[in-house]
Amino acid sequence: MCIRLGYDRIATVVKQRRRGGSTRARGVHAVAMAYDTNMLVEASRAAIDAALAAGRTRTNGGRAIDEHQVHAERLAYAATEVAAAEALAAHAAERADAPVARMAAAFAGEIAGKLRATIEQHWDDFGLDAAVFAGTLGRDEVRHAVRAAQHEARLREIGAEVLRTRGANNGFIDGDMAEMARDSARQFARKEVAPIAERIHRHDELVPESILRAMAELGYFGMSVPEEYGGQGMGNLVMIVITEELSTASLASAGSLITRPEILTKALLKGGTEAQKKTWLPPVAAGELMVGISVTEPDTGSDVASVRCRAERGEERGVPGWFLSGAKAWCTFAGRANVLALLARTNPDLSLGAKGLSLFVVPKDPFTGHEFEMRQPGGGAMHGKADATPGYRGMHSYTLTFDRYFVPAENLIGEAQGEGKGFALQMQGFAAGRLQTGGRACGVAQAALETTATYASERKQFGRPIGDFQLTQYKLGRMATHLAAARQLTYAAARAMDADESISLEPSMAKLFACDVAVWVTQEGQLLHGGWGYAEEFPISRYVVDAQVLPIFEGVKPILELKVIARGLLGR
Amino acid sequence: MCIRLGYDRIATVVKQRRRGGSTRARGVHAVAMAYDTNMLVEASRAAIDAALAAGRTRTNGGRAIDEHQVHAERLAYAATEVAAAEALAAHAAERADAPVARMAAAFAGEIAGKLRATIEQHWDDFGLDAAVFAGTLGRDEVRHAVRAAQHEARLREIGAEVLRTRGANNGFIDGDMAEMARDSARQFARKEVAPIAERIHRHDELVPESILRAMAELGYFGMSVPEEYGGQGMGNLVMIVITEELSTASLASAGSLITRPEILTKALLKGGTEAQKKTWLPPVAAGELMVGISVTEPDTGSDVASVRCRAERGEERGVPGWFLSGAKAWCTFAGRANVLALLARTNPDLSLGAKGLSLFVVPKDPFTGHEFEMRQPGGGAMHGKADATPGYRGMHSYTLTFDRYFVPAENLIGEAQGEGKGFALQMQGFAAGRLQTGGRACGVAQAALETTATYASERKQFGRPIGDFQLTQYKLGRMATHLAAARQLTYAAARAMDADESISLEPSMAKLFACDVAVWVTQEGQLLHGGWGYAEEFPISRYVVDAQVLPIFEGVKPILELKVIARGLLGR
Repeated sequence: MCIRLGYDRIATVVKQRRRGGSTRARGVHAVAMAYDTNMLVEASRAAIDAALAAGRTRTNGGRAIDEHQVHAERLAYAATEVAAAEALAAHAAERADAPVARMAAAFAGEIAGKLRATIEQHWDDFGLDAAVFAGTLGRDEVRHAVRAAQHEARLREIGAEVLRTRGANNGFIDGDMAEMARDSARQFARKEVAPIAERIHRHDELVPESILRAMAELGYFGMSVPEEYGGQGMGNLVMIVITEELSTASLASAGSLITRPEILTKALLKGGTEAQKKTWLPPVAAGELMVGISVTEPDTGSDVASVRCRAERGEERGVPGWFLSGAKAWCTFAGRANVLALLARTNPDLSLGAKGLSLFVVPKDPFTGHEFEMRQPGGGAMHGKADATPGYRGMHSYTLTFDRYFVPAENLIGEAQGEGKGFALQMQGFAAGRLQTGGRACGVAQAALETTATYASERKQFGRPIGDFQLTQYKLGRMATHLAAARQLTYAAARAMDADESISLEPSMAKLFACDVAVWVTQEGQLLHGGWGYAEEFPISRYVVDAQVLPIFEGVKPILELKVIARGLLGR
Repeated sequence: MCIRLGYDRIATVVKQRRRGGSTRARGVHAVAMAYDTNMLVEASRAAIDAALAAGRTRTNGGRAIDEHQVHAERLAYAATEVAAAEALAAHAAERADAPVARMAAAFAGEIAGKLRATIEQHWDDFGLDAAVFAGTLGRDEVRHAVRAAQHEARLREIGAEVLRTRGANNGFIDGDMAEMARDSARQFARKEVAPIAERIHRHDELVPESILRAMAELGYFGMSVPEEYGGQGMGNLVMIVITEELSTASLASAGSLITRPEILTKALLKGGTEAQKKTWLPPVAAGELMVGISVTEPDTGSDVASVRCRAERGEERGVPGWFLSGAKAWCTFAGRANVLALLARTNPDLSLGAKGLSLFVVPKDPFTGHEFEMRQPGGGAMHGKADATPGYRGMHSYTLTFDRYFVPAENLIGEAQGEGKGFALQMQGFAAGRLQTGGRACGVAQAALETTATYASERKQFGRPIGDFQLTQYKLGRMATHLAAARQLTYAAARAMDADESISLEPSMAKLFACDVAVWVTQEGQLLHGGWGYAEEFPISRYVVDAQVLPIFEGVKPILELKVIARGLLGR
């Protein structure tokens, strides 16, 4: 069965790198081998591939996923974890760095052990042949390696290293360009963003214009815009690295500002006319136009094909165009934004579903308050009201109401050819948004790891720093290991997207895994802070509430698992 | 080896109930048997007992826990989970109720499977004899039962029942008194507290006096105060049931108001003089005196024996007493409180550690603001400033500074005999607080389950209520099952404490498990809400941030696991 799977490509990268490995890399390869990392990853891969094959049969090539949702969700998650173990193993094989090799081994052991238990306990659900299991994860050799690789002493060793380095980002990436971009973004984020992040969060403020201007000058709004349209054309990996660093300082007031232009850019590049690209991409890339994405509706979240906001054909003062009417929800930054990418129903026949939808670039005036109203000379109106959220503050997220709001025909992405293609364009945009969210999640988790490592080094209880205790070291070791895996999975997805912009599986896997890691790492960090972890004065408390939005937006977790990842893995 | 363990007592309760079982109960017993619940629980018990025996050897009877922290933490957690499975199995054996029997089976299967994997993967850490494992959880029969008992179809069936009943509390308890107390508390909480809970949270307000007065009239501040001292003398089980219902409406503005008088009451009952009991218990029970507990200091959290706040002997205007100087942190309700239970060092010799500490009843004026200062005529002063927190709002938690604040000698609990006994009294009070926290956690999780079940029944996506989807049902089924186990473990701990007030292991296990369940259930509920789960307008978002304080206060999770539970299980 020849199916194009995300991790197949990741595995290819692993193999290519191994082939091209330097002496240095081979030295570490030996270290990794000593920990049986590769054996564990390969056994996990063989087992999950067999399980997926069984799942394809069971779900009739993905068509019957809804009759096997629990089964499909487990497969999607386990496959994602194995892909993360592979990505981290590939990274370890490449680096002459014992701490990374230790993390790769520990994570491979944990994932192999978890998959082993899942298969054993839900065997019937997986429909996996006993002989296949016996020959892969069921082997005694694997069982021993699972124990050895994730031995608590190894995790404590990793944790001790985290304490020594105060959790510094170990996410080495290839290429001077990416490293330079990281350094510059880190400097900006720590100097300009971090000092105001707490204030913005606690007072639910809007990100100040000075930050937007500075980010515009650094070119951050045009990372994925080709140079011919005024952007940096730096590609996805560099974009992710910058996103991570910005998110380490603040999720909503920095890291997430890039999400919106990224989504619009990808949709325009895929479906826009040449004139539209020339009109919109340069000012977006320059940060002259702030962007909002308007898809979700109060009654329509995951089921994007059911969007009801209407666009009726007409003309205003001689200009042909569309009148928008209806409600939208969760439109982040819609107040300050100068343009919204908005999905609306251009064909009133509801039975057309996704095929009746088109994507618009909707100009508007910028507003800074929690509520705004915009009236057009012709009578059209757009009203916005921010919905309060526990975190992810700095951009405000609005419920919008449109009442015959006019948009010229040339603002329908793809113009006449774009009618009915809005859903596909939006999905393309979402894939970019999901990749970028993987980077955001790694940034938030990184911030939590650093602040916790520092706190554990300084806070004394029972006569010594709490970092001296075995359980603290073990916990920090696991946090760092999972974060390293999330980061390498996200980088692998970025590289895959750099090679092929049309993919959606890899970014979704990165989003799924990295967001869960961010939720877990921030909460572990909070617990290690004791009571002060629940004080707004300590940044860890903000990281926790911020992280909780990550598995929700850009495709809420269960839907991402079933409708994107499981469908991608089991389909065709 | 004859060691007095919490779950031994729980197991005794199971056996007693089984002996006294009615025909009805025997009917359900048969249902439970069909699911192999008892076999799974018994195999888990045998395995964990063997692991604990190995752990005792390894840690030299608990003395070397710090050299085996990861090992000890795993043992403590696994033993707690097995105790929860036993408590739920006992409950199922008692009830003629198929849904409860299904939950008991599913939970027993999950815990047995988890313990099986833990032992297999960390065998060396457990030091468990292979023969013992082979004869317990390692048996093929158990492996099959683990798969069958937690089959996803069973969990979906439980979830369908949750949807049908909108998650209504299924926590049947014996005794008309407890049932009546529950009904009355539920009525009060839903009518008086629930409508103002969101406002208090979002504006960080202080709980209104009207709620305090109403709770006082209902006798809720004197649940554990004996009738001879003006209380209800209702015992711990009834107190827990009431706490649950109050916490379902609001954690901080209702459920947690009881914690403070509970802690002071237990300390006074154990260590107070007769005069002190007569002085303080009646007004506390009547709700005339609000209570704050002041133990933690800015630099001293888990290591209570290191408390530095000083009490120096002296006299003011002819009255012999103590002058308090130093800082305290996280004193919840300290502004509004009329008295603080305060732990201070009466012997300046720091080498005495816990033996130099005494517990005081410290009178003060009530204040309602975020900051207050109280000056005594003799020059003593107490200053308080509230620390902002993301949730758990309604009482404010203060950092306090004392500057030669005078307290009469008769306010030292136990007077002359109480000097140096403050640590032990405080620990007794904490045990009561932990039990009560188990109830608080169950209440928050219950609220999340109910609101999520209602939302899932009403919210439509893809043309039908999201509750129709298998994955939603499965998730609700697991949420309800874990909550049922947490509830029964907490009830078992309350019954154990009713029988013997000096215990500390059972309340700590209930606190550990129930708080983790509350964190997990609220977050699962949030994800099932999609975007609206992150809106402050929907109560689930408040339950999530509130739940996060639960594993932190009253003994932060890792310390509770190591210093209380592991020590209790491995010691002696």
